[in-house]
Amino acid sequence: MHPKRLTILGVGLLGGSIGLAVKSVLNSCHIIGYGHRTSTLEKAVEVGAIDEFSTDPGKSVAGSDLVILCTPVGVLTDLVGQIGKNLSDAAIVTDVGSTKASVVHAAETLLPKAARFVGSHPMAGSEKRGVEFARADLFRHAMCILTPTERTDASALKSVDDFWRLLGMRTTQLPPGDHDRLLADVSHLPHLVAAALVAMQHDNALDLAGKGFLDTTRIASGDGALWRDILLDNRANLGFSIARLKEQLFHLEHWLATGRGEDLCKWLDAASARRDALVHKKLRELNPD
Amino acid sequence: MHPKRLTILGVGLLGGSIGLAVKSVLNSCHIIGYGHRTSTLEKAVEVGAIDEFSTDPGKSVAGSDLVILCTPVGVLTDLVGQIGKNLSDAAIVTDVGSTKASVVHAAETLLPKAARFVGSHPMAGSEKRGVEFARADLFRHAMCILTPTERTDASALKSVDDFWRLLGMRTTQLPPGDHDRLLADVSHLPHLVAAALVAMQHDNALDLAGKGFLDTTRIASGDGALWRDILLDNRANLGFSIARLKEQLFHLEHWLATGRGEDLCKWLDAASARRDALVHKKLRELNPD
Repeated sequence: MHPKRLTILGVGLLGGSIGLAVKSVLNSCHIIGYGHRTSTLEKAVEVGAIDEFSTDPGKSVAGSDLVILCTPVGVLTDLVGQIGKNLSDAAIVTDVGSTKASVVHAAETLLPKAARFVGSHPMAGSEKRGVEFARADLFRHAMCILTPTERTDASALKSVDDFWRLLGMRTTQLPPGDHDRLLADVSHLPHLVAAALVAMQHDNALDLAGKGFLDTTRIASGDGALWRDILLDNRANLGFSIARLKEQLFHLEHWLATGRGEDLCKWLDAASARRDALVHKKLRELNPD
Repeated sequence: MHPKRLTILGVGLLGGSIGLAVKSVLNSCHIIGYGHRTSTLEKAVEVGAIDEFSTDPGKSVAGSDLVILCTPVGVLTDLVGQIGKNLSDAAIVTDVGSTKASVVHAAETLLPKAARFVGSHPMAGSEKRGVEFARADLFRHAMCILTPTERTDASALKSVDDFWRLLGMRTTQLPPGDHDRLLADVSHLPHLVAAALVAMQHDNALDLAGKGFLDTTRIASGDGALWRDILLDNRANLGFSIARLKEQLFHLEHWLATGRGEDLCKWLDAASARRDALVHKKLRELNPD
């Protein structure tokens, strides 16, 4: 899919990077940005991420063949309700939210042509925020998870899949509920735990922190409001993830209290080997060149 | 302190790096390596980390003015018992163990001149093992924690402090018990948690792991046996560390279950700001040049 007119709702790091990435591969795409702060939108024009902008969500989507929701998860569903009546018949709508069940549900409930909505989670980003950090290559070689449902139109799904591949991404598909459950384990829980490891430290312990501690807690340096939205939206799954981590801690406490060195060593070696295998796999995926 | 004759007991990554670092700053120091595998010791001679070797711990320390115990924590106390009768009167003994209470206790109980022992924890290393990864600059700008007690001789303490500074380290002092308590929080618990985050994942969740997950779990790629020794040795403190992490998880579960977005956001922002401040401080310490 090569959109002729693209609307990006929310022009921050992700939205801005989509604009730059599209500009780097397509000559003829006109990009409209929506946001509520004119200064941000002006900056987005300046860096070349969008061609024009509007602070009215309805107006911004009129006439576009592709509309991408790039605002934080907390305002995504509100926004879906505001664009429906202005979408053109052929418009395809997708998003970049880190949780999928709620936004897919809102889109299928509130949009006039629910089948033309395809949920997306491009797994790219950084702990930085704002269009000034946008990069045309942010999505290159990264994974995008598409979350179609029974109601999703097959051609819309193919178009959205094509679009992310055009930006250099690999794609896969999952039902929205499965997506949220797996991401709770492998992304949202690690974020919580990284923050908890910082929050629990006494100052004199932090003074002794080494490189290992800094790596383990890197993702805790994110924006609180952004992550609050994600964590609250996915709180049902996250509750189970926390429970599963606590099970692991329960075993560890038992092994430590009873001096079960062999069990502990086996468990540590298994985790080490499993992570090493993952690293090899990921390095191949992220750096195929 | 400029040792004339130095014994390194255990010539792996740390021991080997000490040898290379000493050779890079002192011309006239003769270095003896002890180990139980001749092939490792031969490799250590080959890379220039030691001048000669012995597989007898007693013989290896005879005549040395500085003796450094560099074996894994699990065999450190055994080794202390084997070198006492061969130490020369002027010999100063130190170690590089990641836990301090047990080795300091063993040294003060088993060595003929307990006052000449000074516990050290040079906070440098990597998840790699073996003398083939040894580096002369491994210790540069890193922190070394010295753990003297009431029995420690002041001049021995000063000599050991001088020695680590000679290798480019910054030094600080803590009682052995405080060291182990603080390191349980800021080093040993993060290691356990990183491994737990890997261990608990389903395979299809790991497939979706991003860069954040890899960073959070990097330290889980360590050697199981090495860490088993550290964790078991420090299990009393580690039990409290796990309990304090579980307190954090308890608050989080409560906030998520009751939709307390403001508390959650405040907590996330505080952790983020605290880590950012730590990073700025550490970057200044680790890269003063």
